[in-house]
Amino acid sequence: MAANEDSAFVCRRVLRFGGDERRSEDDRIAEEVPIALRYNGQPFAVMLATPCDIEDFALGFSLSEGLIEAPPQLLGCEIRPLLEGIEVDLRVAEDAPAARLGEASGRLLPGRSGCGLCGARALEDALRLPRPVHTTRRFTLAALRRALGALPSLQPLNAATGAVHAAAWADGAGAIGLLREDIGRHNAVDKLIGALSLSDLPIHEGMLLVTSRASYEIVLKAASAGVGLLAALSAPTALAVDLAERAGLCLVGFARAETCNIYAHAERLLGD
Amino acid sequence: MAANEDSAFVCRRVLRFGGDERRSEDDRIAEEVPIALRYNGQPFAVMLATPCDIEDFALGFSLSEGLIEAPPQLLGCEIRPLLEGIEVDLRVAEDAPAARLGEASGRLLPGRSGCGLCGARALEDALRLPRPVHTTRRFTLAALRRALGALPSLQPLNAATGAVHAAAWADGAGAIGLLREDIGRHNAVDKLIGALSLSDLPIHEGMLLVTSRASYEIVLKAASAGVGLLAALSAPTALAVDLAERAGLCLVGFARAETCNIYAHAERLLGD
Repeated sequence: MAANEDSAFVCRRVLRFGGDERRSEDDRIAEEVPIALRYNGQPFAVMLATPCDIEDFALGFSLSEGLIEAPPQLLGCEIRPLLEGIEVDLRVAEDAPAARLGEASGRLLPGRSGCGLCGARALEDALRLPRPVHTTRRFTLAALRRALGALPSLQPLNAATGAVHAAAWADGAGAIGLLREDIGRHNAVDKLIGALSLSDLPIHEGMLLVTSRASYEIVLKAASAGVGLLAALSAPTALAVDLAERAGLCLVGFARAETCNIYAHAERLLGD
Repeated sequence: MAANEDSAFVCRRVLRFGGDERRSEDDRIAEEVPIALRYNGQPFAVMLATPCDIEDFALGFSLSEGLIEAPPQLLGCEIRPLLEGIEVDLRVAEDAPAARLGEASGRLLPGRSGCGLCGARALEDALRLPRPVHTTRRFTLAALRRALGALPSLQPLNAATGAVHAAAWADGAGAIGLLREDIGRHNAVDKLIGALSLSDLPIHEGMLLVTSRASYEIVLKAASAGVGLLAALSAPTALAVDLAERAGLCLVGFARAETCNIYAHAERLLGD
């Protein structure tokens, strides 16, 4: 359950205005650091992320982006803090998709984006379809509410900085099994997926919660993790709803203690 | 001032749980659509964005990413709605950086990211430094508060969907001159920069407000627009603070009607 938040924030003296008062205070600010991912020596991507749980991030990113098919294909992960950021050297098995990065291989061909779509430069290869969810698991509103209620106390980095998102996995009863934090919501989900894949938690039996909106990429990653329900504290996008519908994923938006909206596959969530 | 929010959201029947009640309701959901940007026929990037103010977006993205140096270098912009998304064909002048995209030209070389850093695959070319801000403009807390107070009523898309960010420019007195909305905070800033560059507003005399956090890329884009103050409703990251400090940009975080924190260049913001 515990995550590592060493060096995830810095302290800084800030000037705080409140009412007619002005005072100097110590503030804690979340770190945002370039993390360069290399596969078998080949530079692949630089992500801006919070530098904690980096092994989870590297593993989860590799899985959810289809660069490896299963955790054993990741043979090694070396983390090197450099002046400009952090370099992560991933050694992957010969049969992993990431081992073929040097070849011209469709979506894995390097392509510029910029908070755009991974590797896509033209519309034809822009959108991936989510993996269909195979679990038949259903959930109760009570379990969802229990999980949502537990979130705030499990986000130490957000409590310190007020700046970071969380992604959590909860079991069918709503007990949170794992939670990860990052300034980027996609990164938080990738960290969670990496940590889940090494755990013995029954991933397909549980639900995924994010403190952010539900966008296209969050739905894609949730479906790749194989959970039956994704709950977002904020709104979904239309594309996220469409893809959740196709994937068989129950999509809950504006998930609050008292109210929530079900945007797709409501049959997975039973009223109490 | 007015923005175009045609087709920026869709309606959908959702199941809403509240207390012990469950009812079916019409909800409005923000669109998230792949927008492919091509420069002189060369595919460049696919961004996920809200399909309104697309010309502003294309122009602002081109400017803030250094693909053109000034609006006149953008000779034409053709928008084609396709089945898979929207294709935007930009025609740029021969002397624009985007005209050299085909050549191996450092940062403009296509590179994979994924909500990572534009075009960067290795740490050496990951971070750009912001353009130093040259304006000597100072602001009052009263003007900042006036601008913040005016934001909510100027976000029709967010009022409808609860899902989108806004970026706004306000003058030295706190009067909002332009505002743009998008599901992506970077996109909202790019739309604003595009619209500003075609306006006759005194950009350098004003401030930029974002309803999101202040991350590295938001500071970079604000500095490229040349404003002296950036105010974010949520927290800044440590990297954003560092870069605002270097660029001479006053960075305000947790900007609320009653309180705010100044993280960099407090001398630009005078207490009342």
